[in-house]
Amino acid sequence: MNEHAWKKEGLNNLVKQMQKTYEDGIGINHVEGLNLPFRDIIYDIMDDVFAILFPGYMGRKPLTEQGLGYFVGDLLNSIYLRLSDQVEKSLHYACKLGKCDECNCSDMAKKAVYHLVEKLPEIRNKLKEDVQAAFDGDPAAVSFDEIILSYPCMNAIGTYRVSHELFIMDVPLIPRIMTERAHARTGIDIHPGANIGRRFFIDHGTGVVIGETTEIGDNVKIYQGVTLGALSFPKDEEGKVIRGVKRHPTIENNVTIYAEATILGGKTIIGEGAVVGGNVWLTSSVPPGGKVTMSKPSYDLK
Amino acid sequence: MNEHAWKKEGLNNLVKQMQKTYEDGIGINHVEGLNLPFRDIIYDIMDDVFAILFPGYMGRKPLTEQGLGYFVGDLLNSIYLRLSDQVEKSLHYACKLGKCDECNCSDMAKKAVYHLVEKLPEIRNKLKEDVQAAFDGDPAAVSFDEIILSYPCMNAIGTYRVSHELFIMDVPLIPRIMTERAHARTGIDIHPGANIGRRFFIDHGTGVVIGETTEIGDNVKIYQGVTLGALSFPKDEEGKVIRGVKRHPTIENNVTIYAEATILGGKTIIGEGAVVGGNVWLTSSVPPGGKVTMSKPSYDLK
Amino acid sequence: MNEHAWKKEGLNNLVKQMQKTYEDGIGINHVEGLNLPFRDIIYDIMDDVFAILFPGYMGRKPLTEQGLGYFVGDLLNSIYLRLSDQVEKSLHYACKLGKCDECNCSDMAKKAVYHLVEKLPEIRNKLKEDVQAAFDGDPAAVSFDEIILSYPCMNAIGTYRVSHELFIMDVPLIPRIMTERAHARTGIDIHPGANIGRRFFIDHGTGVVIGETTEIGDNVKIYQGVTLGALSFPKDEEGKVIRGVKRHPTIENNVTIYAEATILGGKTIIGEGAVVGGNVWLTSSVPPGGKVTMSKPSYDLK
Repeated sequence: MNEHAWKKEGLNNLVKQMQKTYEDGIGINHVEGLNLPFRDIIYDIMDDVFAILFPGYMGRKPLTEQGLGYFVGDLLNSIYLRLSDQVEKSLHYACKLGKCDECNCSDMAKKAVYHLVEKLPEIRNKLKEDVQAAFDGDPAAVSFDEIILSYPCMNAIGTYRVSHELFIMDVPLIPRIMTERAHARTGIDIHPGANIGRRFFIDHGTGVVIGETTEIGDNVKIYQGVTLGALSFPKDEEGKVIRGVKRHPTIENNVTIYAEATILGGKTIIGEGAVVGGNVWLTSSVPPGGKVTMSKPSYDLK
Repeated sequence: MNEHAWKKEGLNNLVKQMQKTYEDGIGINHVEGLNLPFRDIIYDIMDDVFAILFPGYMGRKPLTEQGLGYFVGDLLNSIYLRLSDQVEKSLHYACKLGKCDECNCSDMAKKAVYHLVEKLPEIRNKLKEDVQAAFDGDPAAVSFDEIILSYPCMNAIGTYRVSHELFIMDVPLIPRIMTERAHARTGIDIHPGANIGRRFFIDHGTGVVIGETTEIGDNVKIYQGVTLGALSFPKDEEGKVIRGVKRHPTIENNVTIYAEATILGGKTIIGEGAVVGGNVWLTSSVPPGGKVTMSKPSYDLK
Repeated sequence: MNEHAWKKEGLNNLVKQMQKTYEDGIGINHVEGLNLPFRDIIYDIMDDVFAILFPGYMGRKPLTEQGLGYFVGDLLNSIYLRLSDQVEKSLHYACKLGKCDECNCSDMAKKAVYHLVEKLPEIRNKLKEDVQAAFDGDPAAVSFDEIILSYPCMNAIGTYRVSHELFIMDVPLIPRIMTERAHARTGIDIHPGANIGRRFFIDHGTGVVIGETTEIGDNVKIYQGVTLGALSFPKDEEGKVIRGVKRHPTIENNVTIYAEATILGGKTIIGEGAVVGGNVWLTSSVPPGGKVTMSKPSYDLK
C-alpha cells in the first residue's frame, strides 16, 4: 500500500467498511438524535462535587473563609444544572430501551439530582468520619489533611457515597461511570449498588472488589486485594444468569479483613467483630467475634 | 544554601553535574537528530482510535447518523498520517540500534500502519463480541452501553487488539507504550505479543497479568488478579536470560479462571472447558473439562 | 422539588447546610489565609522532574544535544522556585499544627528543596541502574528505551527516589502526595519513608505495597501483588496505635520475591540471596540463601 493508493482508494474503502460495522447499531452512541450522557462531562462534575466535599484540597487557587459561601453556592448551582442534563439523557436512554412507555425524564432527572445534592451535607459528614477511621486505623497516617490529600480510599469511598445516591434513584449508567473512574484511579472497585455503613477504611486498596449486593456495617476495615464477591450465578431455565439476586456477602459491624482475603457468596455472613486473616479464601459464614486465619504455614523452607 | 548562592553558583554547578550523567547517552532521547516516538502523541492517537471503534462514547459532542461517515473518514485519515510519523520514528530508532543496515523506514511505517487501519473493521467486530461476552458473563451488567462506557476490560482488550496488529508487524516500542497506558488505567497488564481469541471477558480486572507468549482461545473468562505468567527463564551459557521462547501458558476454548489464580509456565496447558478455582497456584496442565479447586478450607476458625 | 423551588429556596438552604458542615474546620483547606500545598502544582513539578531525569521521553517536542543544557537549566531553576513555594506552605502548615513555635519556614523550605535538587544527579544514576536491573530481569524487555517509555516500575521507583529525599528532610504532606500519584498510575504503593537500595526491579507491579519502615537492600527483584507490610500495630496504654516504630520487613541483598507473596512484620528478615515463592504468606524470617515455596499443590483436580 503506497501513500498514493491510500489517498485514491484506501481511505474511502475503509470508511465504507467501518460504516458497515455500525449498521447493527451496537456500540454507536446515538438514539434518534438524543445521545447518551457524556463521560467527560460526568468526570468534570465529579471533580466539582469533590471540591465542595473537601474545599480547597483540589485545584490551584486558594480559598478563604469569607469566600467559601460564594464558592460553594456557585458550584452547587452549576452541579445541579449540569448533572440534571446528563441524568435526563440517561433516563431518556432507558425509556427508549423499553423500561417505560411515557415519562417525564426532565422532571425525574431533577428529582434524582435534587435527592443527591440534598444528601451532600450528610455525605460530607460521613466522609469526615471515614477520615477519622483512616487516621485511627493506619499508624503511618500523620494528619487528617494527609489522608484527604493523598489516600486513595478517600477518592473511592467518596465516589461510592455520591454514586450510591443516584443508584438508589434508579439513574442508569451514570453511577457506574462514576465508580469505574474511581476504580481506574485507585484500583478499588466498589459497585454503586453496595450498602456501606459509617467509618469505613480501606488501606492501600489496590485490587479491592466490592460487589453490587454486598452489605457492610459500621467500623469495618479492609486491606488491599480483598474481594467481596459472588460465589456462583443462579441461572434461569434457559441457562441465562438471573440479575438482581443477592450474590455478595454481608459484613457486620467492627469486622477487619486483612490483605488478599477472598469472601464469596450471598449467604456468607461475617459476624460482628470477626477478624478474617490475610489470603484466606472463605465461602461460608463466620460467627460474631470469630477469628479466621490460615491454618498453618503454607510453605516449605529449604 | 541561601537563595543568593543558588542564583550565583548552585544552579550552574547542578546543570554541569546533570550533564555529566547524560554523557553515556542512556535515558536521553536523541539519536542524531531523530527522536523516539512521542508518548503523548501516541496517547492522543489511541483516543482517536477508540472514537472510531465506539463512536460517540468518548468526548463531549453529539454524533448523528448522517455525520458519522465524515467523522470517521476525517479521523481515520488523521490517525493514518500521525501514526505513520510515530512508527517511522520507532523503526528508524531500531535501525540505529543495529537491527538493519539500510531500509526505507518511511515505507515500512506506512505498510505497518496500513495493516492496522485495514484491520479496524475486524477489530470492531471482535470488540462487539467481547461486549456480548461481558454481558453474558456478569449478572451486574445492565446493558451493552454500560459495558462500553464503564467496564475496564473494554479499554484493556481494545488496546490489546489494536497494539497486537502493530506488534506482529514488528513495530518497536509503540505497541508496549499502548498496552502500558491501558495497564495504568485499568490495572490489567496484557502484553501486545499475546494471542487472544474471540469473546474474551475480564471481570473487575485489577492485577491481571497476561504475558508475552500466552495463548488464549475463544470464550475464555478470567477474573481480577489472575496471572498467566512465566515459571522460570531459560538462560544461555553466559547466564543471560534467553528472549523469545514460549514462557507463558496456553488456555484453550471455554475456560474460566477465577480470581487471584496464578498459572505459570510455557508448557502448562489448561484444556478446553476446564475451570480453575480462585487463588489456585498452578504450574502443570489441566485436562479438557477438568476442575481445579482449593483442596480444603485453608483456615482455622477460633 | 421542582426547578422553581430550587431557584427560590433549595440552593440557599443547601449552601447553609453545607456551611454548617465546614464549621469544625475538618477537611477545608485554609489555615488563617495560608493554604496547604496545591496537589495539581506538585503533579506539574513531578512531570518536570521526570523530564530532567529522562530528557526527551515525555512531552511532545524534540530535544537536541546542544539544546539540552538550556532545557535542563531552565527547568531546574523553575522546579527549585515552584517546589520551594509548595514546601514552604507545607512547613508553615506543620508549624500551625504545633510541631514548632517559631521557625523560618521559607529558609527551611529552600534548604529541603536544595537538598533534593542536589541529589538529582545521583538519583538519575540510580535510575539508570534500575533500568539495567529491569532489562536483566525481564526476558520480555527489548531495550532500555522500552523500559523507560513504558514500564510502570520506572514511574513508581523514580517517584519514590525523589519523594524519599523530601521525606528525610521532614517535609510534611508533599512526599506522600507524590508517591500516591505514582500509586494511582501504576498500582505500586511505595511509602516515601521506605529505604530501598540500588538496582531495584518490580515486574508488572499492580498491587505491590511497600510500607513506611521497610528496608530493602541491593539487587532485589519483586513481582506484582507482593506486600511488605505490618503484622500488627503496637498500641499505647490508651489503646491508640503507636506511630514511628519499625513495623515492616527487612529484605537483604539479592532477594527475589515472586507474585502475590505477603511478608509481614518489623522483625521479619529475608536473608541475603533468599527466594520467596509466589503466593507464600510469611510472618517469620528466612535465613540467607533460603528458598521458601508453597509446600504442595494446594488444589484438587476432578
